[in-house]
Amino acid sequence: MPANSLPYIGTLLQGARNAITDVEGVTVGHQTLDDGSVQTGVTVIRPHAGDPFRDKVPAAAVVLNGFGKSVGLVQLAELGVLETPIALTNTFSVGTVATAQIRHCIAANPESGRSLPTVNPLVFECNDGFLNDIQRLAVTEADYLRALESAGSDFAQGSVGAGRGMSSFQLKGGIGSASRRVSAPGGELHTVGTLVLANYGRQPQLVLAGHPVGERLAAHGTRESREPEKGSIIIVVATDAPLDARQLRRLALRAGAGLARTGSVFGHGSGDIVLAFSTAYTVPDRVDRPMPAIAMVHDGLLDGLFQAAADSTEQAILHALWRATAVTGRDGNHRAALSELLPPSSLSSL
Amino acid sequence: MPANSLPYIGTLLQGARNAITDVEGVTVGHQTLDDGSVQTGVTVIRPHAGDPFRDKVPAAAVVLNGFGKSVGLVQLAELGVLETPIALTNTFSVGTVATAQIRHCIAANPESGRSLPTVNPLVFECNDGFLNDIQRLAVTEADYLRALESAGSDFAQGSVGAGRGMSSFQLKGGIGSASRRVSAPGGELHTVGTLVLANYGRQPQLVLAGHPVGERLAAHGTRESREPEKGSIIIVVATDAPLDARQLRRLALRAGAGLARTGSVFGHGSGDIVLAFSTAYTVPDRVDRPMPAIAMVHDGLLDGLFQAAADSTEQAILHALWRATAVTGRDGNHRAALSELLPPSSLSSL
Amino acid sequence: MPANSLPYIGTLLQGARNAITDVEGVTVGHQTLDDGSVQTGVTVIRPHAGDPFRDKVPAAAVVLNGFGKSVGLVQLAELGVLETPIALTNTFSVGTVATAQIRHCIAANPESGRSLPTVNPLVFECNDGFLNDIQRLAVTEADYLRALESAGSDFAQGSVGAGRGMSSFQLKGGIGSASRRVSAPGGELHTVGTLVLANYGRQPQLVLAGHPVGERLAAHGTRESREPEKGSIIIVVATDAPLDARQLRRLALRAGAGLARTGSVFGHGSGDIVLAFSTAYTVPDRVDRPMPAIAMVHDGLLDGLFQAAADSTEQAILHALWRATAVTGRDGNHRAALSELLPPSSLSSL
Amino acid sequence: MPANSLPYIGTLLQGARNAITDVEGVTVGHQTLDDGSVQTGVTVIRPHAGDPFRDKVPAAAVVLNGFGKSVGLVQLAELGVLETPIALTNTFSVGTVATAQIRHCIAANPESGRSLPTVNPLVFECNDGFLNDIQRLAVTEADYLRALESAGSDFAQGSVGAGRGMSSFQLKGGIGSASRRVSAPGGELHTVGTLVLANYGRQPQLVLAGHPVGERLAAHGTRESREPEKGSIIIVVATDAPLDARQLRRLALRAGAGLARTGSVFGHGSGDIVLAFSTAYTVPDRVDRPMPAIAMVHDGLLDGLFQAAADSTEQAILHALWRATAVTGRDGNHRAALSELLPPSSLSSL
Repeated sequence: MPANSLPYIGTLLQGARNAITDVEGVTVGHQTLDDGSVQTGVTVIRPHAGDPFRDKVPAAAVVLNGFGKSVGLVQLAELGVLETPIALTNTFSVGTVATAQIRHCIAANPESGRSLPTVNPLVFECNDGFLNDIQRLAVTEADYLRALESAGSDFAQGSVGAGRGMSSFQLKGGIGSASRRVSAPGGELHTVGTLVLANYGRQPQLVLAGHPVGERLAAHGTRESREPEKGSIIIVVATDAPLDARQLRRLALRAGAGLARTGSVFGHGSGDIVLAFSTAYTVPDRVDRPMPAIAMVHDGLLDGLFQAAADSTEQAILHALWRATAVTGRDGNHRAALSELLPPSSLSSL
Repeated sequence: MPANSLPYIGTLLQGARNAITDVEGVTVGHQTLDDGSVQTGVTVIRPHAGDPFRDKVPAAAVVLNGFGKSVGLVQLAELGVLETPIALTNTFSVGTVATAQIRHCIAANPESGRSLPTVNPLVFECNDGFLNDIQRLAVTEADYLRALESAGSDFAQGSVGAGRGMSSFQLKGGIGSASRRVSAPGGELHTVGTLVLANYGRQPQLVLAGHPVGERLAAHGTRESREPEKGSIIIVVATDAPLDARQLRRLALRAGAGLARTGSVFGHGSGDIVLAFSTAYTVPDRVDRPMPAIAMVHDGLLDGLFQAAADSTEQAILHALWRATAVTGRDGNHRAALSELLPPSSLSSL
Repeated sequence: MPANSLPYIGTLLQGARNAITDVEGVTVGHQTLDDGSVQTGVTVIRPHAGDPFRDKVPAAAVVLNGFGKSVGLVQLAELGVLETPIALTNTFSVGTVATAQIRHCIAANPESGRSLPTVNPLVFECNDGFLNDIQRLAVTEADYLRALESAGSDFAQGSVGAGRGMSSFQLKGGIGSASRRVSAPGGELHTVGTLVLANYGRQPQLVLAGHPVGERLAAHGTRESREPEKGSIIIVVATDAPLDARQLRRLALRAGAGLARTGSVFGHGSGDIVLAFSTAYTVPDRVDRPMPAIAMVHDGLLDGLFQAAADSTEQAILHALWRATAVTGRDGNHRAALSELLPPSSLSSL
Repeated sequence: MPANSLPYIGTLLQGARNAITDVEGVTVGHQTLDDGSVQTGVTVIRPHAGDPFRDKVPAAAVVLNGFGKSVGLVQLAELGVLETPIALTNTFSVGTVATAQIRHCIAANPESGRSLPTVNPLVFECNDGFLNDIQRLAVTEADYLRALESAGSDFAQGSVGAGRGMSSFQLKGGIGSASRRVSAPGGELHTVGTLVLANYGRQPQLVLAGHPVGERLAAHGTRESREPEKGSIIIVVATDAPLDARQLRRLALRAGAGLARTGSVFGHGSGDIVLAFSTAYTVPDRVDRPMPAIAMVHDGLLDGLFQAAADSTEQAILHALWRATAVTGRDGNHRAALSELLPPSSLSSL
């Protein structure tokens, strides 16, 4: 299914790939575990080609709903930077992946080993326990490293990486991505790229590009389509616009507007968390290295970026749903693909 | 135009009035100033028939975007209660209305006058300067009192009270209200009622009940329809469900989902603030009066209330837009009524 | 009483004046109302010689305890800047002083008058109702302007300006100020200057430079010395170090450490608020003016500034207490001066 | 050294044990690892004798400084409860201990295993890497279970459990505890108990019961006594007073006042986190079990509890320092005991 047959959200232009990797320097890698009752994985987003422990990346997070077990947000809020690649995985693998991040950072920065390294792991999670035998704790530290090593500008979406076992609106969910471009004064263009790990939503709520299709789908659905919300969504927003942590927090909140348009009301049992980061500059680890001297975007010019964050989030969610392939996992549990039930082309006739 | 011709948001049932006053005990009053270049006013929401200084009301606020001058939120966040009626007015009248609240409270509680009364005024504002000569500071303390005295269960919507001079999506905005009912376990019903003061939105963004009508309206519009966002929206959510301040903050955030569905991305120049309160119990002013001993709703049962907050907010915004009548004010500035440009009945054919 | 006879807090060096005005460009002015039962006033801190509406000042606030009615903090938190001089006054005069700030800004920026000026007033308050007949609302808009016009590098401390009617530890409180200097790498010096409006504290809690003198004072005191905490303290921290809003919030919190050393536990009925700002750069009002491109201090080098914020706050409080002169006000209410009861020189023999 | 020879902080009475376990139902257990270069451990605080997953405990946290890797705070902030025992350990063992908490909860609640259990681990950490070979990751899941099983009302303080390898003010730090009792209206008594894991502070800052002894100690000290702050302190405050999560957040903040009195300015490199919980009621895991109907303490009566939180925190820190025994660990690194350098009895002669 070609991407261009999917509904297009908003009026802003997309980037070349319509993906988070349109923000220059950002790469994404997956490690997918697909073996019977093990349907899970790891997805890694590298904010730049270097080591983010040495060259930290300005970042901020917004917790729309905090029913979640992600790690690393306390220090990120205090210091306004992230210092490891961003990892996504299932709920019970957070500890393993965090340890892998620590080991990898220590190996790469032996000198900090002498002086009590305190790298801050950054791992987000959703619970894929419907399709994946989560208690098997199948994800290993090596899986994190493989996802990291495979990171590139082109990457798969749908039922891959951390998205392998995820469900959304009682359909198959997973990884989706999109981007939007915004004109800045002086003719410059800024890019906002978003990647989601979609594992949220009750089916009757589903709205696709403004079409409230959920009730209709649920009418044909099984009993479980009336389950309470138990999912989560992780949204990662990247931009090349120079923003500080305060502004990135503002940007992150706008992803919530895109999420809301798909029918979400940030359900009680959901961990709905947005992380935003900028690639426009980095902050050095050592105090004897020079700090960046850079002009941030004026707050009065943020509206275009806000619109891009909302639109690319909604678009990334559509990509996650329509690009996901059906998966059968633990105990024969099955999630159908949206593209089987409702091809994008059918939407225009609704 | 009968209300029932307007699109109905969501699948939850409305209350008897489809208004915030469906939450028992809540009343609303307006004082409208309509005199040439003065197009403004005051709207007051009384959470109960008594004096909220003596019987304080559990409450919480969420600032979606903080480009605003509302007063009272510091103490409300600390103590989790409100202690005056909720007042809405224009930006420059906040001080006058706050002073009126203080005087009214002192007069009603002379004994607290002896011991240094420190009532916390609670005044929200939007900037109606396009239609209203805001620098005239036309609102007086007496206007607040008149709005307070006129409070009742039935109240006008549209271009009235604080909504008199407000604009939204470069159309006439103002006051709108709606309600939704939610089944609680045991057969009980809880009501969520919402009132908005709508003064936000760029026209191309406007989405009405899922229909992205904004671009089409803007194509026929004037240059100003491409203005940057400079508005605001105040959303007040009432419920009779017993919730504490932490839970009310959760509820308030969901109003943001309803707002997002209308096209808002919480623009930079907008003061987008949500206040939520519960009428299920009160907190006494004096430490020698008994505290309420009441079972709150289990957080695991909040999803229905969350849906109601989002749906009633979107519905209240539609009411504000379609019930507003055209107004001409300062310097001949004019805002058309949505109902003239796009009757609700025309929406179904889009 | 010469300042150098007061205990000196910490080991960092003070600036030339040991006052907030050691931060270059910062000036302070008072307007004192001293007429029988009217014992109140206004104090204004100008962050620089220009108009902060045009050249906004990076700032952040921390609410240690939110039993207070200060205005302006919602927008300050969102945008990370202040845009008016900082005003301090009594609780009931907040509205009047805010209106004065708005009028002054509009007069100075007529062009913004055309396009709906929305200046964000910034007024902090404590309740001086014990000495001052606060219900007389004696402070006028003209008083704000006089305080503003009188602002200079040298300014009085103690029972002056907004501090005229304030009480602290059931003694006379008021305005105090201090400064500390910190070495930055490369031999540079940064200055941290603090000004407090002290109106807080129960007498038995009082600790002066580590000496728990409060219990002893209270033993000789009146019944009222056992009153519950009903006061407040406003702490304003200025620095010439280049810090962004996130870092200024970190700095502001450390003033709380200085406050705690004087015996405060941030009492329930107290509005304990800290504002921190930097004079190292400004943010333009208009989007077509260039944004500053400036290297912030590395977070790893903030400890000296943190120490300076805590030490200068404790020192400023000592100055407020020892420099205050006795005042008799409303209903013959009287507050003694600490210097009468406990000369600084007597402290060393405790 | 008998406890009663230590300086006594404040004027409130202590509980029977002067420890957190004076709050009825609270128990504490340690597992200490003491083997050459491995000097570390786990400390567990059980809020009640039951399973906190079934009977959740109202709780709130305050991050004074967020340079830390503790897990569980996102969900705790959202829901206002904790649902596992509270675990303290070293920085690199957080993942292991969190996994142990998850496994223990699943084993005890098999039925939740069917429906995707999502227990929220709660693990706090400080970095003991100076004395402990932290990269050995010596703590195992079994160590958590042993600490849990050993929990009782009487427990050791000083260089034990998670405190085994901790340093404070370049002296030996570790575990300390204290309690204070507060009269409530009606003659009732409430208890506030505090436990600290002290691993913070630069030596020149140290203040013991108001005596600034740090500079004097540092003058005799080694070069390292002038190191920048790299430590952390975890403070856990328990009370039997009925408080909701909002009030517990207020209580937690006051522990910061006690911390400040010991010389801390919440250094940049420190993870200074306070957790407060109440044992007065619990919140059921299942929505079909009844919610508690309980009258909270009126906010106007919190000052005594605030004082108790601050005083018991300062006292617990003194206990941690004076009860710690000297430890030699990794690479022969050594931390002396405060009691060797400065016996409590010597303090009165300073």
